[in-house]
Amino acid sequence: MAEKGLGTNVICQIGLVVRDIERTAKIYADVFGMDVPNVIITDTEDVAHTKLRGAPTQARAKLAFFQMGNVSLELIEPIGEPSTWKEFLDEHGEGVHHIAFQIKGMDRALAYLDSKDIPVIQRGDYTGGRYAYVDGAPSLGVVLELLENV
Amino acid sequence: MAEKGLGTNVICQIGLVVRDIERTAKIYADVFGMDVPNVIITDTEDVAHTKLRGAPTQARAKLAFFQMGNVSLELIEPIGEPSTWKEFLDEHGEGVHHIAFQIKGMDRALAYLDSKDIPVIQRGDYTGGRYAYVDGAPSLGVVLELLENV
Repeated sequence: MAEKGLGTNVICQIGLVVRDIERTAKIYADVFGMDVPNVIITDTEDVAHTKLRGAPTQARAKLAFFQMGNVSLELIEPIGEPSTWKEFLDEHGEGVHHIAFQIKGMDRALAYLDSKDIPVIQRGDYTGGRYAYVDGAPSLGVVLELLENV
Repeated sequence: MAEKGLGTNVICQIGLVVRDIERTAKIYADVFGMDVPNVIITDTEDVAHTKLRGAPTQARAKLAFFQMGNVSLELIEPIGEPSTWKEFLDEHGEGVHHIAFQIKGMDRALAYLDSKDIPVIQRGDYTGGRYAYVDGAPSLGVVLELLENV
């Protein structure tokens, strides 16, 4: 199914929104016997071209990653708003915000999901790639993230 | 770390609580180009020995599984109450209820997590094994499930 549909069903990442990333990262490291990861901050809007529902946003996030088997657990602490991360935290509290997939062909994948009534929420760039969150919550019970390294 | 701590940091399953498992399973199958899985129902309390915070409960759940890479996505529709699944649905709506790990030595693992202020919420048996949910929500942002095949 590489040439049609989403092109993958391999979950590569679980994204967890938290209020205090340094605290939560330390607890994960302690409980699972792992190193405390570095905390990074997403790029500013002029670099990341961050858009929420089509409109540029200054919101950013602190991120930290734990490799847990074949899946990366991403901790996310929202900085500022509006963002899909902050909206999730306000609505649900801490918890799993998304499951992520590595895809090829972002525009085609987003058009495919839109045809399934799963529209894009937020998108942007990171060093080496681009991401998009799509609103799977009403139909799939969870937001999906598409990651494309370029 | 097989002999101490939790003994694993490999996420093997993501558990998603939904309101209508047949509907959600069909949408996942359609979006990701997979077969619609069979829906199974957890055993009754006399067989599964289901306990919520130490007290027997008659609550059950419908389950369906999608293999998505090295991770199994478990859809869960609560039937009756009280259960950790129904509590999550009432409090948060649909969403990711837990991340799961295959462990060896349930009692030792639960004692370890309890020593980290992560107490057991619900436990029970299934054909071929046993499970326990522990309350990672306050410290880890998400419930953990321990699975032990016996």
